[in-house]
Amino acid sequence: MKNDLLIRCAKGEQVERVPVWLMRQAGRILPEYRAVRAKFPNFVEFVKQSEAAAEVTVQPVDILGVDAAIIFSDILVIPEAMGLPYTMVEKKGPVFSSTIQNAADVERLQIPIPEEKLGYVLEAIQLTKQALADRVPLIGFAGAPFTIFCYMVEGSGSKTFSKAKKMLYQAPALAHQLLQKITDSTIHYLKAQIGAGADLIQVFDSWAGILSPQSYATFALPYIKQICEAIDEVPKTVFAKGAYFAREAFGKMACDVVGLDWTMNPQESRKLVGTQKVLQGNLDPCALYADFKDIEQQTVQMLEAFGGQKHIANLGHGVYPDIQPDHVKCFVETVQSFEIADRFPASTN
Amino acid sequence: MKNDLLIRCAKGEQVERVPVWLMRQAGRILPEYRAVRAKFPNFVEFVKQSEAAAEVTVQPVDILGVDAAIIFSDILVIPEAMGLPYTMVEKKGPVFSSTIQNAADVERLQIPIPEEKLGYVLEAIQLTKQALADRVPLIGFAGAPFTIFCYMVEGSGSKTFSKAKKMLYQAPALAHQLLQKITDSTIHYLKAQIGAGADLIQVFDSWAGILSPQSYATFALPYIKQICEAIDEVPKTVFAKGAYFAREAFGKMACDVVGLDWTMNPQESRKLVGTQKVLQGNLDPCALYADFKDIEQQTVQMLEAFGGQKHIANLGHGVYPDIQPDHVKCFVETVQSFEIADRFPASTN
Repeated sequence: MKNDLLIRCAKGEQVERVPVWLMRQAGRILPEYRAVRAKFPNFVEFVKQSEAAAEVTVQPVDILGVDAAIIFSDILVIPEAMGLPYTMVEKKGPVFSSTIQNAADVERLQIPIPEEKLGYVLEAIQLTKQALADRVPLIGFAGAPFTIFCYMVEGSGSKTFSKAKKMLYQAPALAHQLLQKITDSTIHYLKAQIGAGADLIQVFDSWAGILSPQSYATFALPYIKQICEAIDEVPKTVFAKGAYFAREAFGKMACDVVGLDWTMNPQESRKLVGTQKVLQGNLDPCALYADFKDIEQQTVQMLEAFGGQKHIANLGHGVYPDIQPDHVKCFVETVQSFEIADRFPASTN
Repeated sequence: MKNDLLIRCAKGEQVERVPVWLMRQAGRILPEYRAVRAKFPNFVEFVKQSEAAAEVTVQPVDILGVDAAIIFSDILVIPEAMGLPYTMVEKKGPVFSSTIQNAADVERLQIPIPEEKLGYVLEAIQLTKQALADRVPLIGFAGAPFTIFCYMVEGSGSKTFSKAKKMLYQAPALAHQLLQKITDSTIHYLKAQIGAGADLIQVFDSWAGILSPQSYATFALPYIKQICEAIDEVPKTVFAKGAYFAREAFGKMACDVVGLDWTMNPQESRKLVGTQKVLQGNLDPCALYADFKDIEQQTVQMLEAFGGQKHIANLGHGVYPDIQPDHVKCFVETVQSFEIADRFPASTN
């Protein structure tokens, strides 16, 4: 591979510079994405177009010069493959026509064979790998079980996910059954993504921050742990947005990279996670609204806080759709021109 | 005052049992509230009915037996009084017809004289004090300047408040001007509430958690500090939801009580805040969906974690509207029957 910086860094190897990519880099920030997307007005159908998905996956590598591609898809393909179809409603987000409320509902859910139900993602990965021609690694991903659980029980996005959390308090055994079924499906799915060519996988726990530390330890961590322990073919990243209280636990988990959101102090996070893992993140996504000089300054400040090694630069959340591409490019180029040998001589000898 | 437990506790005095109230206790959880509310379909107008506001403020004292009343109102009365009217849209939340975008917009905003523009709140406080007849203290409140800023610039609720945060990065001087004007208005408003009879005031920074620690230190903390330093007539509580990274800073601020959301570990928070302040919180609001036995168990566990003294029991967020009143009552009664002299003998001698 021509640029395998991300993989070497994720494995804990010493690197010559900090690798960089952005969550949601394949998406609405790029006019080139919007041009492809315009051909498929229905988002759920768009995700199933393997060729289009591969095309928009490669765009940020060509246009922004990032050090990795991440397959264009959605975390909700898993509930759909398990038997819960969804639609994407403008300005509202995902909506499920039926939700999981009782034991019979959980029973009815399938643990899908990825090749049968999610072949379009695997094909998109294969097409992307061909198009990338070993320029940069390809990241595969899935939602963490608790986040998928939230959507399957709540039936849509929510500020509090109180319907989903209600099940944790009223029917914890049922919640565990559902979480286990999602976990099993996710492990098969991630293994299939690796089989199709994914070079690293990331698990997104987008709604981690709505749980108390105790609930997170009971209903979220054990399932992420299962996923991490089941997969050893490629490096693994866990990103649990808002779960500042779980950083120590992630430090002890069988993952390689721990993603940080923008509220998490890099030095404090290093202390909590320990010295072994790689940290990923964590510029405030809104920092990219600033002018070039300020973006550069804040990016350098972030790079210095992480200390040069065992760091994958990223935002602390997905890039917001109204950020100008040249502002994203400024962020990427600032990371790529940051000389760690000069700034942290001890870290590169 | 017959039951001044909350005030004595907030002042740091040793108490015979833990005081308890709930954020949003005057609201949709009570059928008695919904009956009053039905007479005023327009929420913004409802808030201005002093008699009705006083009536629903007293309801939870009568029905739930809480140790304090909190005046029924909305944090958005301040932007309205400053010159930005809002409407409340069902399932969407507040919407402002105009927002603050530039220096002229900030210039046009007034620093309202509370007696002129917010007399209906002051009258509601006076009516409530009469109706309470010194049974329990009355809490007054306001939004923290950054949270009010969010609504004034964004124009509505938002998952990310990216439009509001954009101003922090693109026009920080303008943001500071706006924040200062909100702060000045808020200080006058809180002093007027105290003049009308509020026995304690609470500042709600509902959107604290969307800022990086650095932005929070720049754009939020200095203004909360000004408010705390300007008010010394009654005890002051600061509740910054999601700002786990600011607990040490609140420990050094001129406030009496620090509110904790349900992600914040009580013992860890005590270490960060220090031994002087009172802590308030912090049961997961969803815990009240559980059955009585579980509510009791989780409430006792929380009470034990806080250690009996310098603690005001509450949820970690406002009570959710679909919680059954008898579940709230179970929470209140569990706190009120918790014997701190038995459990923590050292704390009461």
